[in-house]
Amino acid sequence: MKIVALAGGVGGAKLAHGLAQILPPQDLTIIVNTGDDFEHYGLYICPDLDTVCYTLAGLANPETGWGRVDESWNVIENAKRLGGPGWFNLGDRDLGTHIERTRRLKEGQCLSEITRNFCKVWGIEHTVLPMTDQYVHTIVETDEGDLEFQEYFVHRRCEPHVKGFRFDGIEKAEPAPGAREAIAEADAVVICPSNPWVSIDPILRVFSPLLSGEGPGVRVFAVSPIIGGETVKGPAAKMYRELGIEPSALAVANHYGGLLAGFVLDQIDSELSKALEVKTLVTDTLMKSTEDRKRLAQEVLNWIGDL
Amino acid sequence: MKIVALAGGVGGAKLAHGLAQILPPQDLTIIVNTGDDFEHYGLYICPDLDTVCYTLAGLANPETGWGRVDESWNVIENAKRLGGPGWFNLGDRDLGTHIERTRRLKEGQCLSEITRNFCKVWGIEHTVLPMTDQYVHTIVETDEGDLEFQEYFVHRRCEPHVKGFRFDGIEKAEPAPGAREAIAEADAVVICPSNPWVSIDPILRVFSPLLSGEGPGVRVFAVSPIIGGETVKGPAAKMYRELGIEPSALAVANHYGGLLAGFVLDQIDSELSKALEVKTLVTDTLMKSTEDRKRLAQEVLNWIGDL
Repeated sequence: MKIVALAGGVGGAKLAHGLAQILPPQDLTIIVNTGDDFEHYGLYICPDLDTVCYTLAGLANPETGWGRVDESWNVIENAKRLGGPGWFNLGDRDLGTHIERTRRLKEGQCLSEITRNFCKVWGIEHTVLPMTDQYVHTIVETDEGDLEFQEYFVHRRCEPHVKGFRFDGIEKAEPAPGAREAIAEADAVVICPSNPWVSIDPILRVFSPLLSGEGPGVRVFAVSPIIGGETVKGPAAKMYRELGIEPSALAVANHYGGLLAGFVLDQIDSELSKALEVKTLVTDTLMKSTEDRKRLAQEVLNWIGDL
Repeated sequence: MKIVALAGGVGGAKLAHGLAQILPPQDLTIIVNTGDDFEHYGLYICPDLDTVCYTLAGLANPETGWGRVDESWNVIENAKRLGGPGWFNLGDRDLGTHIERTRRLKEGQCLSEITRNFCKVWGIEHTVLPMTDQYVHTIVETDEGDLEFQEYFVHRRCEPHVKGFRFDGIEKAEPAPGAREAIAEADAVVICPSNPWVSIDPILRVFSPLLSGEGPGVRVFAVSPIIGGETVKGPAAKMYRELGIEPSALAVANHYGGLLAGFVLDQIDSELSKALEVKTLVTDTLMKSTEDRKRLAQEVLNWIGDL
């Protein structure tokens, strides 16, 4: 079975890692959000892309889910001493990625090509694609004005009240090379348990003609990032509340609407499955360990295969 | 006695450090070459300026003369693993300087302002000025074509045969704020034992109207970077040879020509002093220890004071 997974950061990376433990390289393509990429200290940083790659490569910090394991912080500590901003954690090993990516971008390489090269070095055999090679900037519209995503998410710790989202540059964003083909050949698209508003929506916007749910299109399945009304990590539940929507697995399913052929939700939310018109898989969706990732991925694949 | 010192990297930094151990902060201004500044991995790097500042702050690696003491190399090792160039040594702590300087430059701050702020943090009380806030690029014209200075110096290890030098952008380079005033108030300008061709000439070009040797101008003294026909460090002697000039303290004195009121050369070259028309100080100019720096600086200051 050929699968395309759509992923944001930590939660998405976990399920992507689970899928990668089961599917052979040629059968899994992971398309990653780049809307929260940003420039910091003159360097081009791709938080979601790096989290997915570090996770697949076994380089991720298991305690945070982002950043590198066995990390040191000598660069940022010295930059902070000189008056530089310290709100975004930049580890030394992680910075090796950022400076080399920035160098290659300035040289004219595109992000998907750079990512392919990096994956090769990191021993990642499955295909990891940024959603696009064009610049897309996720803007969080808040009661304190428009904020770049990392400014809202990390610097302001998701405190400003959310009013809406905007993806600057999305109109000109083309799917990354190979992404169209991967979707065309896929038996299913799996939306990983990432934030629907800021991690998955930008990807869906870029791929909307391919994933519209109209025509013969590929079947799309989603795993809820909301369990028992709360998110495991990140501000999705808070965003739903501030937008006047009760945060729940149901709200996530409704968010994706007609796009979905099926929806995966946690046992704790089993009652909600009755309210859904799409097919559902009710299981334990919380991924605490590496084994959990593989187990959940296997259950999702079995379920899709059986449908 | 108020002194302005002109300095390049390691050798210049040593004498500047000696002067700073003797003169109170208000009596010493160090003007540093920026012609070998360059962009690497998207970061703006000022090798001479950093070497001078790290040396004055006691942060320099005592074994190399450049870079930071107690340094780690996690960023560059990871960037190299991803295919990035490794020919320029970028330590983690050193990178803290580069990323914060790059951030500030992109924010619109000028190099002299940034340097003033960094010096404050590093506890450097004497005034350190980049020669200019404009971009100047030292180009080494070689038998293998034009090379940016760091490309020639570090990447190519000074191997290409030198045919000449060019300082791109020098026509538009204004002295850094405060530099004119420091020279106007100085009792003497001391040219530190730095490479005349690539460290001192760019500074002299920027300050030529002030240091022309015409009019009432300030007295200028130079310390030879060439001892016994060789340089302690760096390619100055090789450059002289390739340009058809016998490398010697005499050649350095002739290089500066009418600009000089006096010249300091090593005991080993005492014979050469006879051939010089300017006043000379013959002493031990090799600075192996921190004490040597202070001793040489004190001798130079005493000599200037007595003239």
